[in-house]
Amino acid sequence: MSCIESIVIAGGTHGNERTGVELVRKWEQSSREVQKFCPSAKIDFVLSNPLAIRENRRYVHQDLNRSFSKKSLSICGDSLCYEINRARELEKLYGPKGESTKTDLLIDIHNTTSTMGVCLILSAKDPFTTRASAEILSEFPKTKIYFQPEPREESPYFGTIAKADICIEVGPQAHGTLSASLFLETEKVVLRYLELAEEFNRGVLQQKPCRPVEVYTQWKDLDYPRDSLGNIQGMIHPDMQGRDFKELREGDKVFKTFDGKDITYKGETVFPLFINEAAYYEKKIAMSLTKKTLENW
Amino acid sequence: MSCIESIVIAGGTHGNERTGVELVRKWEQSSREVQKFCPSAKIDFVLSNPLAIRENRRYVHQDLNRSFSKKSLSICGDSLCYEINRARELEKLYGPKGESTKTDLLIDIHNTTSTMGVCLILSAKDPFTTRASAEILSEFPKTKIYFQPEPREESPYFGTIAKADICIEVGPQAHGTLSASLFLETEKVVLRYLELAEEFNRGVLQQKPCRPVEVYTQWKDLDYPRDSLGNIQGMIHPDMQGRDFKELREGDKVFKTFDGKDITYKGETVFPLFINEAAYYEKKIAMSLTKKTLENW
Repeated sequence: MSCIESIVIAGGTHGNERTGVELVRKWEQSSREVQKFCPSAKIDFVLSNPLAIRENRRYVHQDLNRSFSKKSLSICGDSLCYEINRARELEKLYGPKGESTKTDLLIDIHNTTSTMGVCLILSAKDPFTTRASAEILSEFPKTKIYFQPEPREESPYFGTIAKADICIEVGPQAHGTLSASLFLETEKVVLRYLELAEEFNRGVLQQKPCRPVEVYTQWKDLDYPRDSLGNIQGMIHPDMQGRDFKELREGDKVFKTFDGKDITYKGETVFPLFINEAAYYEKKIAMSLTKKTLENW
Repeated sequence: MSCIESIVIAGGTHGNERTGVELVRKWEQSSREVQKFCPSAKIDFVLSNPLAIRENRRYVHQDLNRSFSKKSLSICGDSLCYEINRARELEKLYGPKGESTKTDLLIDIHNTTSTMGVCLILSAKDPFTTRASAEILSEFPKTKIYFQPEPREESPYFGTIAKADICIEVGPQAHGTLSASLFLETEKVVLRYLELAEEFNRGVLQQKPCRPVEVYTQWKDLDYPRDSLGNIQGMIHPDMQGRDFKELREGDKVFKTFDGKDITYKGETVFPLFINEAAYYEKKIAMSLTKKTLENW
């Protein structure tokens, strides 16, 4: 991708993650102002899951942000599942998934109950998202980079219907609520991405020197302790709560059982993310473990 | 009420408030141990809204904890609303609402996204709940007392089907998650209430000297700023976030609009509670304003 001609900014892919919902509503009403940040691209805004937004739930029938694999999108006929149909609608508007997609860049705004600050999630290391995210990282102290490599065809995430995508995870914020400070920070970050897209289209961004960045790369997920029936038997340890992006070493306390016992971590040193995310209890993820590297982007 | 013969401990009255859900599950499996804290009373445990718990939602069709008014309970015939039927079921088990109820004391455990600590909500000033709560307040630094007087017949709250009730609001905790430190503190508080019920039944609690307690009494609710269509136009101000039980004076910043403007508070000095509770956006409550008094309980 040498030029970003079309950008989609999405909120409410999960209906109870309100930062993106309110930002998109605001920007829809002031689209001319937003367009000025990147005059060389066409910018669209979308509330991805309107029914879930109305119900203030993550999703109605299934997670919309797990409904965009090539396989799921290519099943014929109407589904009884709201999100399967909505994913196909969104693909018609902004896809199709693959090389011939109408969308060069998709920015999808999410919230998390974890202490992720304003986390920039990259599914691939493409020229724009790496360079632009390195700039953002240097300008905004609350931002971090999480690299979650995804085979693009199989990936179920909304962003993967575009050529390039950035998923922004903002927290801690309880689902269904708004944190004013995170709202204002997220707004600045997204508008800055638009300016950087403009710089990219003018060839200016490419001329800037590379920057050293800390990259947290997905390694594996860690589940809660459970009994033989699958019921959880413990909670994030008080010492672990809020320690996203901090080192976790063998022997550190990681869970507290309902009986008050400590469970310690066994394994190599890692950097946990998404600690105590509400929506991940059902996905059997107490936290995602990452490896940290220093890279030049 | 001179003797507490029957106690109901409830969790999951709201299905995504997990502290009560997991505590009740734990106590159901160790009921003999729990019974020892108050041998003179029969203790029942209940997961109030099992369908909402399974779906990890506050409620399925309507708020169960607004379904217990005498009027709502007395409508004849089956309803299409899950919670109306469930409220009647619970009333059959533990009521009926009024003087002839089978339940002397109901303790209902809730969570909130607000920074409420372990808040003891009293709907009436009866001999046991006032004296026992004053003891709890002196023993647990995270506890506060919120007095929300309710005409018992009309009140829609679950607790009001018993002769006396305590609603415990625990937070901040994002709905659908668990905070280990709040879980452990809540467990201690509820078990201590059981011990105090035993002391009450033996006439011991009544012999103790009264204690001075700070009581936060409900005055009125404050809504978010909204446009003419009813859409919210602002958020809790960053300066206000987490300031539950702290003084709010005229001129203090209370909201931040989506355009970044500050809205200040106008009115007499109050003490806000339930600041930024997720479930109260739909109830048009940004926070509840209370008056603080020093009382002897």
